[in-house]
Amino acid sequence: MIVTSVTILVKKENVNDFIEATKKNHKESIKEHGNMRFDFLQSIDNPCQFLLYEAYESIEASKAHKDTAHYIKWRDTVADWMEKPRQGVSHKVISPIERDKW
Amino acid sequence: MIVTSVTILVKKENVNDFIEATKKNHKESIKEHGNMRFDFLQSIDNPCQFLLYEAYESIEASKAHKDTAHYIKWRDTVADWMEKPRQGVSHKVISPIERDKW
Repeated sequence: MIVTSVTILVKKENVNDFIEATKKNHKESIKEHGNMRFDFLQSIDNPCQFLLYEAYESIEASKAHKDTAHYIKWRDTVADWMEKPRQGVSHKVISPIERDKW
Repeated sequence: MIVTSVTILVKKENVNDFIEATKKNHKESIKEHGNMRFDFLQSIDNPCQFLLYEAYESIEASKAHKDTAHYIKWRDTVADWMEKPRQGVSHKVISPIERDKW
């Protein structure tokens, strides 16, 4: 299992468009083989800050996400809306280790 | 729903103890009323960096976590093991909004 947390700071004027584009990406990403979660969250203190929490059952499945049509479309659509480059951190899972908890 | 992501940088010499203490906190936290997830992750690039991903069905349930015996024990146990103060960010959920997806 591998979980990538991606923190994204979006320009204020693009927040609504970003939410719509990312909802579409979420909807397709959860259908991917090997995807376990794909949560899309908005900071309460700063509504321009978002978190994507992307859990995959393997590094290969995680990497394959970057080759999907919906990811590429999302990446290109939101590119100019970033306030700064997004920050991704890849993690291994300590708990819960049970596959059915994901 | 509210999801708090907590990034924690631990002193190298305390990493193993931190993992054991946090596994115990995880085990009790998932039993809390209103808890939906409590994931404990370790950065692949920096094994001293951890992420807690704490999902609760309400702000009240999230706050109640801070009053539990297991949280207080964890907090006091790990206090001196932090490399720097941990960073928590509270989020509202955009996707998935269905309760049964959590």
